[in-house]
Amino acid sequence: MDISKIITGVPMDPQSRQPMYLQIAWIIGEKIRGLILTSGTKLPPERELAALFRVSRTTAINAYRYLEQQGLVVTRVGSGTYVAELSTGTAEEGSAVPWMQLMTPFPRLPLSTVLRELLDIDFSGGSISLAAGMPDPDLYPVELLQRIMSGVDNSINPVDLGHIATEGYGPLRRLVARLLVDRDIESTGENVMITAGSQQGLYLLSKALLEPGDYVVVESPTFIGAHQVFSAAGARILGLPTGRSYFSMLEDYLVRYRPKLLYLIPTYHNPTGRVMSEAERRELLRLAARHRLVVVEDDPYSSLYYGEKPPASLKALDTYGGVVYLSTYSKVLFPGLRTGYVVANPALINRMALEKQFIDLHSNNLAQWLLCRFLASGALDEHLTLVRSEYKKRRDALSKALRRYCGTDLSFELPGGGFFIWCRLNRLFSSSRLLHQATGEGVSFVPGEAFYVHPPEGEKELRLCFATHAEKPLQEGTRRLARALAGIKRTGKDQDTIVNQPVKPLI
Amino acid sequence: MDISKIITGVPMDPQSRQPMYLQIAWIIGEKIRGLILTSGTKLPPERELAALFRVSRTTAINAYRYLEQQGLVVTRVGSGTYVAELSTGTAEEGSAVPWMQLMTPFPRLPLSTVLRELLDIDFSGGSISLAAGMPDPDLYPVELLQRIMSGVDNSINPVDLGHIATEGYGPLRRLVARLLVDRDIESTGENVMITAGSQQGLYLLSKALLEPGDYVVVESPTFIGAHQVFSAAGARILGLPTGRSYFSMLEDYLVRYRPKLLYLIPTYHNPTGRVMSEAERRELLRLAARHRLVVVEDDPYSSLYYGEKPPASLKALDTYGGVVYLSTYSKVLFPGLRTGYVVANPALINRMALEKQFIDLHSNNLAQWLLCRFLASGALDEHLTLVRSEYKKRRDALSKALRRYCGTDLSFELPGGGFFIWCRLNRLFSSSRLLHQATGEGVSFVPGEAFYVHPPEGEKELRLCFATHAEKPLQEGTRRLARALAGIKRTGKDQDTIVNQPVKPLI
Repeated sequence: MDISKIITGVPMDPQSRQPMYLQIAWIIGEKIRGLILTSGTKLPPERELAALFRVSRTTAINAYRYLEQQGLVVTRVGSGTYVAELSTGTAEEGSAVPWMQLMTPFPRLPLSTVLRELLDIDFSGGSISLAAGMPDPDLYPVELLQRIMSGVDNSINPVDLGHIATEGYGPLRRLVARLLVDRDIESTGENVMITAGSQQGLYLLSKALLEPGDYVVVESPTFIGAHQVFSAAGARILGLPTGRSYFSMLEDYLVRYRPKLLYLIPTYHNPTGRVMSEAERRELLRLAARHRLVVVEDDPYSSLYYGEKPPASLKALDTYGGVVYLSTYSKVLFPGLRTGYVVANPALINRMALEKQFIDLHSNNLAQWLLCRFLASGALDEHLTLVRSEYKKRRDALSKALRRYCGTDLSFELPGGGFFIWCRLNRLFSSSRLLHQATGEGVSFVPGEAFYVHPPEGEKELRLCFATHAEKPLQEGTRRLARALAGIKRTGKDQDTIVNQPVKPLI
Repeated sequence: MDISKIITGVPMDPQSRQPMYLQIAWIIGEKIRGLILTSGTKLPPERELAALFRVSRTTAINAYRYLEQQGLVVTRVGSGTYVAELSTGTAEEGSAVPWMQLMTPFPRLPLSTVLRELLDIDFSGGSISLAAGMPDPDLYPVELLQRIMSGVDNSINPVDLGHIATEGYGPLRRLVARLLVDRDIESTGENVMITAGSQQGLYLLSKALLEPGDYVVVESPTFIGAHQVFSAAGARILGLPTGRSYFSMLEDYLVRYRPKLLYLIPTYHNPTGRVMSEAERRELLRLAARHRLVVVEDDPYSSLYYGEKPPASLKALDTYGGVVYLSTYSKVLFPGLRTGYVVANPALINRMALEKQFIDLHSNNLAQWLLCRFLASGALDEHLTLVRSEYKKRRDALSKALRRYCGTDLSFELPGGGFFIWCRLNRLFSSSRLLHQATGEGVSFVPGEAFYVHPPEGEKELRLCFATHAEKPLQEGTRRLARALAGIKRTGKDQDTIVNQPVKPLI
């Protein structure tokens, strides 16, 4: 077989914008891909190839190199260039790897991207977001933080920048433990673990406690991120309605399903703002003790009260020992801090640390070290006093505006703390329909069904966050919401409530 | 049934140090646990109970409250106190929850706690650790960092403290991409993701790509953390010996097992210090392209070269598109920074971000923001110049001391960069035996088998880190090592090499 004829049968295009070496590589590559040149065939030496195509030797060398990179030829030193073994095809440049097919199945969570999208909201365009549960950037303790940072001259101990225990920076753990007295929780640092936000606490808990198929009870509605983490762990989620049947339904679940854990936010609940009374807390703990239930108490908002202090935490009331307590500084200080903590039985803390070791060895020291200085300086109290008074004004401003502009269309109870007003929509359309209209008016919120285990439950509810904006934008946002409500009325599309459609067979 | 008789049959002990209410609760509790008082039985009203035990009404109330918390009685408002339904027993205070039994099975990794223990080493006791792969605290860029921090006055933009994209702080991603030119990698920030150290990059990769039972090829020896993360994901690990048979063995694995990925450290390998030549890199990429192999290139050490610069990264040479690149600033700056990054196909980056969202939403902004300022100020180059020259001196000091004090007992090749000298022990005992003796002399290292997929492979090797200590302690550490070597000779325990023992049936 005369190889020179095979590979020079195709004319080169001198007008082409492709470099000569690529054109040559392409011609030879085609013959290899088409199995005209079969695996193991010896190709002409570089000098000969150069002569065949009337190009420089460098161009010939580059052509072979490119073919080599493509896996089409192999060079054996001292022997020459050969057509490579092709397995099932050849690699194309760049997009050769079918990454989507290589990946593991991703849990199909109906709202898995909601959080991401909420974070993407563009505040600059004049739109007012009452959606994301975030503190107002204008209230971040930037000055206090700058004061802490600029005071660090010569005070960093290099040891504090080295590896630390996976459970967290020792002085921070002890300080967190000391501050927990405020929630009536007695703790040394031993049973405290620092996590990258409450989110990581939930993730580690799910790694330590949940196997696919385990049952988990969550309040419905509840924090989206918790529901997602448990679902991603393969747990079966039981939604517990937050109403009169709460305890009887919980007991039914406990007897019927033996769930691995109950996740709840007893203080300034997300999204409802509700506070569990002390009597209810005790009732819950009795049930938990009797049925050996692990209770995960998520408590990000309890220091944000706008009247009287909330009742003692479940953890404080727990004599049975089954409560795992999660909290975070990210809601009180600023979201990017991503620093939370877990208080739990030392055996569980140890296991969570083993899991965390795989994930990140330990959380980074800079944030822990700065937070520690921040807390030790007493700046937290200073900051809390400020934000409590400010958020109280905002809550009152929003509720007043809602009554004034939205009248009977929306009803709600005034929350005693936290970030949210949870509204019921007294109209014939859904809150998703309202969101669509509201976006057009330049205001957004989270429709209720995002928080429910079984949408369309919640289709008549919506969550408004009063923490992110000052009083004036809150008033303006409410006016826009009222315009959206009126707009739907005007266009006469008042009747689009979701109702069960007859189930039609798929054909 | 006269309940008063049942519960007052046991006398109280006025000398007891237990409060009265607890003694009463105990007496009643015993009767309930012993099923003498059965579920549903109505107990005496508080006033009556107080009279029965001749205590105050408060004491009686507290006794019932305690029993309620224990889940032994229930109070029905307006009706009275009743013996509760007991399911399978009753909860004891505090240690009632069998946490160990509640937890999911933890992967049994032979060396899972090695990293943790290495971090626990006490440097203060005068012992010299050549074990952990850590930079020297005296070389952390503390002053540069303090300079950056103390210069922040009024320069923090609150937006930078809010939520950011899960993929990382935008300016840092773009800066990392720009600095990658140094590794011949062309990138916009688009395909760069910030992670909590390389460790998190590995974890996210394993979440995105590995299902239980998948095959993964790692070099053997290799970085312990990588092996552990892949094992924890349920992957089956194939160890690739780093020697002559490297490519033929790899091809055998590729054909035989179709592994999901190959993990390797081509530049200043951990633990061996080895550098893959450019020809070997190209050979590897050819194989990868032909067999559609995903290659994970871990590159924490490439900027720590002590002679000529290492060859271009695999990522730079990759025309096939199958290389995922991981690196970190924690090894170059300080371990507590826990900030690394991944460069990969955008589809993979997106999936890793979805996984990271469950784990921590995003890495905290403070460290990312400070690192960004650090890199933008040019401080990295300043710092790299310093540490390169310092580590070079240390590498030379350790190798000289090894030749001088340990002579032919240890043989090694001088590494061109990185943190480690990898030694072969030319004696009849194992390096674990040597470690035992060395600890007594006040020096430690990591025995070779810790890095192998199949111990006792590596029993004749050991890893010495020259980065953590200055020249003098390195010399002193080597003298101690020599004393340990001599000590084993003297005590005549030279023959304890691990050999295969005949397998005896378990009876």
